[in-house]
Amino acid sequence: MDYSAQLDAAIARLHDEGRYRTFIDIERKRGQFPHATWRKEDGTETPVTVWCGNDYLGMGQHPAVLTAMHEAVDATGAGSGGTRNISGTTVYHKRLEAELADLHEKEAALLFTSAYIANDATLSTLPKLFPGLIIYSDALNHASMIEGVRRNGGAKRIFRHNDLDHLRALMAADDPAAPKLIAFESVYSMDGDFGPIAQICDLADEFGALTYIDEVHAVGMYGPKGAGVAARDGLMGRIDIINGTLAKAYGVMGGYIAASAKMCDAIRSYAPGFIFTTSLPPAVAAGAAASVAHLKADDSLRVRHQTQAKILKLRLKGLGMPIIDHGSHIVPLIVGDPVHTKKLSDMLLSEFGIYVQPINFPTVPRGTERLRFTPSPVHGPREMDALVGALDSLWSHCALNRAELAG
Amino acid sequence: MDYSAQLDAAIARLHDEGRYRTFIDIERKRGQFPHATWRKEDGTETPVTVWCGNDYLGMGQHPAVLTAMHEAVDATGAGSGGTRNISGTTVYHKRLEAELADLHEKEAALLFTSAYIANDATLSTLPKLFPGLIIYSDALNHASMIEGVRRNGGAKRIFRHNDLDHLRALMAADDPAAPKLIAFESVYSMDGDFGPIAQICDLADEFGALTYIDEVHAVGMYGPKGAGVAARDGLMGRIDIINGTLAKAYGVMGGYIAASAKMCDAIRSYAPGFIFTTSLPPAVAAGAAASVAHLKADDSLRVRHQTQAKILKLRLKGLGMPIIDHGSHIVPLIVGDPVHTKKLSDMLLSEFGIYVQPINFPTVPRGTERLRFTPSPVHGPREMDALVGALDSLWSHCALNRAELAG
Ligand SMILES: Cc1ncc(COP(=O)(O)O)c(C=O)c1O
Ligand SMILES: Cc1ncc(COP(=O)(O)O)c(C=O)c1O
Repeated sequence: MDYSAQLDAAIARLHDEGRYRTFIDIERKRGQFPHATWRKEDGTETPVTVWCGNDYLGMGQHPAVLTAMHEAVDATGAGSGGTRNISGTTVYHKRLEAELADLHEKEAALLFTSAYIANDATLSTLPKLFPGLIIYSDALNHASMIEGVRRNGGAKRIFRHNDLDHLRALMAADDPAAPKLIAFESVYSMDGDFGPIAQICDLADEFGALTYIDEVHAVGMYGPKGAGVAARDGLMGRIDIINGTLAKAYGVMGGYIAASAKMCDAIRSYAPGFIFTTSLPPAVAAGAAASVAHLKADDSLRVRHQTQAKILKLRLKGLGMPIIDHGSHIVPLIVGDPVHTKKLSDMLLSEFGIYVQPINFPTVPRGTERLRFTPSPVHGPREMDALVGALDSLWSHCALNRAELAG
Repeated sequence: MDYSAQLDAAIARLHDEGRYRTFIDIERKRGQFPHATWRKEDGTETPVTVWCGNDYLGMGQHPAVLTAMHEAVDATGAGSGGTRNISGTTVYHKRLEAELADLHEKEAALLFTSAYIANDATLSTLPKLFPGLIIYSDALNHASMIEGVRRNGGAKRIFRHNDLDHLRALMAADDPAAPKLIAFESVYSMDGDFGPIAQICDLADEFGALTYIDEVHAVGMYGPKGAGVAARDGLMGRIDIINGTLAKAYGVMGGYIAASAKMCDAIRSYAPGFIFTTSLPPAVAAGAAASVAHLKADDSLRVRHQTQAKILKLRLKGLGMPIIDHGSHIVPLIVGDPVHTKKLSDMLLSEFGIYVQPINFPTVPRGTERLRFTPSPVHGPREMDALVGALDSLWSHCALNRAELAG
């Protein structure tokens, strides 16, 4: 076996398809988001503006969050020192779980080290709790949900993205007595479109299914207290399990589910991905709790966030840029080719000091490669002008299409 | 479908078997480890001594670590704001990866949010890189390795714990041309025994297999610079992939693999568990890097750690306590029944202010339920006296066996 040659081949495939990923080394400056320092391979540094982060509201530099983190480090040190069961449960973890249960108006919440593992661990454990469970999973669900659904070889049906007729047909074809669960997202992060929450809940009622929603790209940002799109639409009570992250709008790290006390207790007790790993550092839990609490009480960042997204979309549309607009906070600009996307990203970075990572397969389907902008309350008019101007000039320079893909 | 009744049944099974887990809410006091505050269900607080943490060296309160965390929070804020590919790579992540590659004398290292996900993601991705890969996995491997080996339905063979003849027989029975990997641990954390690294490497050479070692309970603690048992035994160069955690002896959070540059690049490019999740907060990476650097240069904590473990084992053996002793830093005291173990743990906590969590199935095999003590450099003679005295009196009080299981 020539293992080395096989690795070469695996890496060469990525280069051939133009989708080998190069990580950009970025350090954001606290108090000056979205400004950051780009450290190049040769060690030199240049100031840049970050336009592709998922710290959607800039909470990663909010004084309430940072103070909570500093205080927890001073009080209790760096790590938790154990798994949740073995010395790794602290008052910080419990407080955060209580905060999240309250946010989602559920009996309980369960903290994981990330929303990735929350999805993976929960979805792969549910078939153990409900033998024979069939999971109906939206075709565009996030990789972490796909991994969770796949993992234990339980029954699964993939329905076409947001296609209620297809979902209904699949459910109708299955044994009415079988336990069922529909897994979907509230905001699909790469197109920025919404899942049809109410209609999915209707189907769940009709077929006696549980509902599982990933609100990772919505928590903090939608709903009166930031509980997400289901909360905004008054549908939170119809969802059995809500998944969220503390790493995007909340600006820190960690993931969770919110559900009934029984559900959380069962997942807590049976999910290897919850049980067998060190819990989050207390300082991370403390920072996240402060962020959730802040965004519960104050919606000014949420309002400005939506305004910023609207302005950017309007301006890009005005220039005929092929953006996708489903009314969410995400602004995808379709390029449609991995090599061109990378090139545009490189030029934005090196010529304009604008950092937006190219998004390639497998994150998005081939042929829909894109630049994905995440305007936020910390992007001021000057940053917006610079971005719009740079895109306009690059689009002209590269003779790229305008308008065709705008939707 | 009565989902609620099914959840009741799942939870009742745990109660029936006496292995329903109750999390103890503990807050360690920075600067006073292993002293902590236990917050009871009723909200009252009591001082306790933690004897079951995995912050083996007390690095979670080390000033070098905490200063690095504070500085990073001040410089760059709370979270990273993105996945490694999309704005979530910072100089802190790169510096930590360089530190870890150097520690293990490998070309590269790759950071994950935990060693759990490092194991799961790496082991489940290897079959994509080496089609037809057969993974030979020690029967007592950690849950995260088991999940990784299982996940993609690749070929696997489970060899009896540390049984080289069995491993050889399994390998000999397979196609000599098939790609192979042997996955095992250096220190098995529940018994504290060591894997036969040299002999496993010999078999790997003989059968043309790759080697994968989990050094989670060894990094920071063994070897001249803390690189683990393989380093201590001069065998690091014979291991293809080393897995470690930043959450135990290093006192913070996060996990990694160290391997060839090609291997890390391929895993980086193909593993969903690496790609599709927010990277560690910069402050966590900074704290971990400071911890690794400190323990590379200074072995005084390592030496005291081993001494503490030896003293505790000698004293417990002197009292005829059924501990397991394989010469590592872990001190398991076998009780052999989940209900008794829980009871002992409860009495230690409520009567003696000593916190040691009962360890039950599935963390250990049924019938080997235990208390697992983790002596450390921060446990002084007074804490040790209190523990030994408490165990002695409980053992007499409960008329428990002495000596039979001591090994
Ligand atoms: C042997 C072993 N490997 C991996 C892990 C996972 O490490 P982490 O806590 O970093 O997820 C653990 C324990 O948590 C472990 O005991
Ligand atoms: C839809 C969706 N779910 C889950 C996750 C995982 O969240 P986390 O970064 O907390 O692991 C992500 C992105 O990271 C996501 O986009």
